[in-house]
Amino acid sequence: MKRSYKDLIKGLESNDRVCLSKLISSVESNTSSIFKIVNSVKKIPNKIYTIGITGPPGAGKSTLTNQVIKKLRALDLKIGVVAIDPSSPFTGGAVLGDRVRMQEHSLDRSVFIRSVGSRGDLGGLSYSTSSMIKLFDIFGMDIAIIETVVLGQTELDIIKISDSVVVTLVPEAGDSIQAMKAGLMEIGDIFIVNKADRGGAEKLAREIDYMVSLKQDNAQWKTKVLTAQAENDIGVDELVTEIMSFREYEESSGLLIKKRNKRKISELNTLVEKRLRNELEKTKETATFKDMVIKLENGLLEPEVLVDKVINLIKKNN
Amino acid sequence: MKRSYKDLIKGLESNDRVCLSKLISSVESNTSSIFKIVNSVKKIPNKIYTIGITGPPGAGKSTLTNQVIKKLRALDLKIGVVAIDPSSPFTGGAVLGDRVRMQEHSLDRSVFIRSVGSRGDLGGLSYSTSSMIKLFDIFGMDIAIIETVVLGQTELDIIKISDSVVVTLVPEAGDSIQAMKAGLMEIGDIFIVNKADRGGAEKLAREIDYMVSLKQDNAQWKTKVLTAQAENDIGVDELVTEIMSFREYEESSGLLIKKRNKRKISELNTLVEKRLRNELEKTKETATFKDMVIKLENGLLEPEVLVDKVINLIKKNN
Repeated sequence: MKRSYKDLIKGLESNDRVCLSKLISSVESNTSSIFKIVNSVKKIPNKIYTIGITGPPGAGKSTLTNQVIKKLRALDLKIGVVAIDPSSPFTGGAVLGDRVRMQEHSLDRSVFIRSVGSRGDLGGLSYSTSSMIKLFDIFGMDIAIIETVVLGQTELDIIKISDSVVVTLVPEAGDSIQAMKAGLMEIGDIFIVNKADRGGAEKLAREIDYMVSLKQDNAQWKTKVLTAQAENDIGVDELVTEIMSFREYEESSGLLIKKRNKRKISELNTLVEKRLRNELEKTKETATFKDMVIKLENGLLEPEVLVDKVINLIKKNN
Repeated sequence: MKRSYKDLIKGLESNDRVCLSKLISSVESNTSSIFKIVNSVKKIPNKIYTIGITGPPGAGKSTLTNQVIKKLRALDLKIGVVAIDPSSPFTGGAVLGDRVRMQEHSLDRSVFIRSVGSRGDLGGLSYSTSSMIKLFDIFGMDIAIIETVVLGQTELDIIKISDSVVVTLVPEAGDSIQAMKAGLMEIGDIFIVNKADRGGAEKLAREIDYMVSLKQDNAQWKTKVLTAQAENDIGVDELVTEIMSFREYEESSGLLIKKRNKRKISELNTLVEKRLRNELEKTKETATFKDMVIKLENGLLEPEVLVDKVINLIKKNN
């Protein structure tokens, strides 16, 4: 039997994992379904804290995420994870390669992991990730983790949903340059050089540290560059401590509120723009618009002359 | 004395180069000024034929363009050129490096060359290039040439304004791969391997030919891959002949009309979307919107709840 939205939302609010899972699938397949949900829940708690874990391919992000989950569980925090794999054609909770190791948490009812591929609608992924975090929040999770490789602007947009961003690098030649090119230097709140048993880790850490320091002359917060071997649980405690310190700093300085407000406003913007595009699409289906197109094609009118008319059509359509 | 738009447009229609130049500067600095122009001219002739010359940096595009201009002048065709230099911070008819050699046409009153840098507003460049071509058309030019390097989607959008696209490559290792990556394989109507005195030209030509043939199983038009040494005027006549053949094919098959109609519709789209963004910006200045933002920041409302309200505000604003 298919459960109604109302039932699912009730279930979500009373900590039912099946309902959480179903609603996540729903916002994943149709981004606008979050509207119904937000309009139906009693209140969005706004209590969840979101950690982004990112970096170039092969930096060991999944292993690190897995270890961070363990540490946070030891603090008795409830955790929701969105693991994004832009190269994967699968969506909807599939078990993806590296993600397998995260499955050790699958019996822990205080951890919820959703792997998300991104075939097709990369543009919508940032919004659906943000919706998933809202669902985690309503469900009562304390921490959300977004794990994603950064390949371009889209993934940068996704990772910017986070309250703190951990940039993971490995001591390969050129990793610092790759990070710079991908815009990772700008978004990192904490940097971690993973697989530090390989040569060059200290050197890379110093390089990153120097680059970060150039931008942080008068900052109240000093961005740290840590080293780790996530696989052997070395340096992960320090990372979690650093995340927690950063959180405290963000909260006490008012930075977190500012960041979140900015995010809400940009979310409103995105939603309004999307809606306007929809209105335009609807308008294109009207006879009046189709008639304009014919005139355009026959060279009777130029596009410039039609703009006002189309805008008026959109405004009249309700 | 500053001349009025009306005067400038009159001048444009009666073949006054100074007026052309001033109006080009006007659409370059303010994309919306083409609206006034289109609304004031008697008729857009829609007679100009646009050739795009593109390729990776260092392929000799300027030299080739220069030679093509010479050949077209020999056919007594009037030519307007938009040379785009995305790396240059200069705009507005500056003489840019390689372009110097094109200046040999500067005394020819049937050739008009405008170099365009692209600092900042790359998004608007495609539209302002299309506006410049409209001005050339009204001025009475027969041929427009757009010359640009392709570094990303923006330049691809610009070059797509062309009725035929000439992709210029040089026989360096990896040039074919670079072309593929940049999306040049998809947009080329004619390919030319320039600097063919260097080794590997024939090999590259065969490679490109093979790649093109894979996509052209049942096509009526067989895309040609030519070789040339533009500097020594070798192969340029063949290129011009090929462009003219392609034009004939496009015109007789109805492809040109189809292409241009598609372009007009996408232009209308772009303009409407731009206008909608402007309307949104205006709405953001209203007291009602600012009040919403305050509620959003105080956590009293979620972005999802506000979307409808913002859309209604936009629709009411006239």
